[in-house]
Order: sequence, then structure tokens, then C-alpha cells
Amino acid sequence: MTTAVVLLSGGLDSSTALAWAIRRQGWCCHSIAFDYGQRHRHELAASRRVAEALGVARHHVIRVDLAAIGGSALTDEFDVPKDAENNGIPITYVPARNLVFLSLAAALAETVAAERLVIGANIVDYSGYPDCRPEFLEAFRRAAELGTKRGVEGHPLAIDAPLIRMSKAEIIRLGLDLGLDYALTHSCYDPAPDGRPCGHCDSCRFRRQGFAELGLADPLPYPDD
Amino acid sequence: MTTAVVLLSGGLDSSTALAWAIRRQGWCCHSIAFDYGQRHRHELAASRRVAEALGVARHHVIRVDLAAIGGSALTDEFDVPKDAENNGIPITYVPARNLVFLSLAAALAETVAAERLVIGANIVDYSGYPDCRPEFLEAFRRAAELGTKRGVEGHPLAIDAPLIRMSKAEIIRLGLDLGLDYALTHSCYDPAPDGRPCGHCDSCRFRRQGFAELGLADPLPYPDD
Repeated sequence: MTTAVVLLSGGLDSSTALAWAIRRQGWCCHSIAFDYGQRHRHELAASRRVAEALGVARHHVIRVDLAAIGGSALTDEFDVPKDAENNGIPITYVPARNLVFLSLAAALAETVAAERLVIGANIVDYSGYPDCRPEFLEAFRRAAELGTKRGVEGHPLAIDAPLIRMSKAEIIRLGLDLGLDYALTHSCYDPAPDGRPCGHCDSCRFRRQGFAELGLADPLPYPDD
Repeated sequence: MTTAVVLLSGGLDSSTALAWAIRRQGWCCHSIAFDYGQRHRHELAASRRVAEALGVARHHVIRVDLAAIGGSALTDEFDVPKDAENNGIPITYVPARNLVFLSLAAALAETVAAERLVIGANIVDYSGYPDCRPEFLEAFRRAAELGTKRGVEGHPLAIDAPLIRMSKAEIIRLGLDLGLDYALTHSCYDPAPDGRPCGHCDSCRFRRQGFAELGLADPLPYPDD
């Protein structure tokens, strides 16, 4: 049986990617989430809920102190933009985040002898993050092949980004087809203290638009619903 | 003035690389050390001592929980081999360690707007770690270029591995020429509780052999001196 490590933030994309890996591919999946000093800590609870609902082999939460490095509205005291135009790389960009997360996932893949690494990156509704592009993922794959024990021993890690060219609506359609309950997921960059999404950050906007395109209600409770 | 991020474990190689960056190149250096659940915690104190002695702009200690990922004698309860033959990749290999450390250093480089990243990797006295090879470093450089904001904005990070083809003796000679006090450094994988090196792990053996080749005394206190 194929073993995979799946990056799982508990957001819409990564949860769908996990559903794809388990329910469509039939892989044995280890999910990995990062406690990186993010302000939106509710995503850690969401990743746990989704991992349990989909039935992973094990859910791993790794602490990595990106807040000590700084430089992002997701870890520092910047304001998260609301209903904003999309111009270039937003301040919610966390420096080198996918590079760091993929590296830690590659480390876990060595320990659990996983052949594949799954990431929910996509470039269609992509908000200008350079580390979601296919050319980055391929360059990372090559670095991991050359810099890990399994890689040099002839078992390089494959990287799957099944959502890479899908729109948000197509991602939601896939997840619903696979029986994923999006009420378990969490996408907001700037939730209320009780975890309710703001409805207006980039992440909420793309998500709501995706459900709207399908003529469906997002199961999350937005303040202006 | 050129700004660089320098990986600094407080060991012989990384300390020499920092001395090279500050005293030979004249760069403004941010040193970065990792609190990764290593059993040899004395290296964190050594990295602080060396950073202070050489005069970095700032020393950054980043927590990253590699012990939760496991798979290495440096984080888990394996025995560190003593006076061992070198066959392939040793159990002191930490899965994807340099991939993770370089990624976090690249994140810091974005935050402090550093143009260069310096690593003390070398392949001559190299103990079989795949992530010390030039081809890995080049693949990583490319991934960082494609996956970071500064990279895609036309300011890709350069990676310097000034010690990559030097023997341990040559590295020590360079450090001494630059006035580095090796009494501040720490190389042992398995020190005594008071921090004294064991003298017999791979790291101690390579280091002692380097000083011996130069006809010099290692300033560290070994139990069998």
C-alpha cells in the first residue's frame, strides 16, 4: 500500500487534497499540521477534526516558530486586508512558508517511509504566493531527492498537487463528491475569537465565491449571512 | 553593505564559516541556530558564544520540533556510535535536516533582506550526509529562488558554502588565521552532562584529527587527554 504524507492546514484546499489521497487514491496517509505561531489558531483544531473524519494513519502537529522570523500578517501584528484588490504578493505571505512546510513534511516522509507527499497548492484562485507554483514544487522535489537519505538511496519522494489547476468551485465539487464535510474546515485568516470566519479576507472571499459559483451554501457561519 | 544569514550550530565548521563571512568578506551577518530537540543542547550555548565573539548583527534561535518527527540518534534515544567505521549514512543523520534548516534560513533572509546565505557544509571529511553535497545546495538554491518573494522579485538568494571542498585541517587553519577561538565551539554528538566532549563520536574524531594534522592541540578538554 502506498504511504503518503499530506500537508493539512484544515483549510478547504488541504482538506480536499487529503480526501483525494485517502478516498480516491486509497493511500495510507499521515497528515502533518504546523503550529507556527499563526494568529488564526483555529486552523489547528480544524486540521485535527478533518484528519479524524477522513481517517488518517496518524496526525502529526509539528511546532516551528515562524513568528520568531516574522515578516507576515499571519504571524505578526499587521492588519489582515479585507475585501482587498489583489496586487502582487499579499502581506499574508509568510516568508518561505511552503519551503519550510514541505521540508518538514519531507523529513516526516523519511521517518514513516512515505513514497509521496501531497500538497493542496493551487494556482488558479491563487493569491500571488510564489510557493504555490508548479515550477517551485518541481524544484523542491529535486532538492528533496538530493538532500534526503531515501532520495539518494533511490526512493525519491513524489510530490502530488492534485488541485494545482482547479478553480475553487472545482475543488469544492471534488470534495463534495468524496463526501468531505466542509463544515469541519477553516479557511479564514482573521477569525473572531470564537473561531467564526470574518467573511472578507482573501481566503474567505475565494471560498465563498467558490460555493456561490456552484449555487451552494458554504456551511460555515459568516457574520453577514 | 552585503547582508548574509549564516547557519551557526556553534560547531567547528559553522563557526569558521561565520568567521569567513564577517572577517574575510566583511558582510553584515545574522546568525541562525535551531533549537530542534537535539540531545546535545550545549551546541546552542556554543552558537551564542561564537555569535557574540565574532560580532553578528543579531543571533536568532528558532525552535523547530524535529524530535517530534524522529528518526535520528541526535534527537531520539539511539546510542551515538563511537570510534565507528564509516559505512553509508550514519544514524546521526537527521531526516532532511539541512533542507529544513536552509528553508528556515531562507525565511529569515526574506525578513532581514539578506542577499546571501552561508552554510559550513563540507564534503571532504563528510560523514555520508546527503544534504552536505554541492548538488543538493544548488537544487535548494533554485527552490528558494522560485518559492520566495525576494526570489521571484528578482533578488534570488545566493548560497555560499566556503568550506565545501576543504579538509578539517584546512578549515581549522582558516579559522585560526581569522582569529577564531575554537575553545568557544562545540562539536560533540554525545557530550557529558557538563558539556565536555566524548572524544569518540564521528564529530569529535574528525575534529581531533584535524588539529592533530596541523600539529596543534584542540583547546577542548577531552576525557582521554
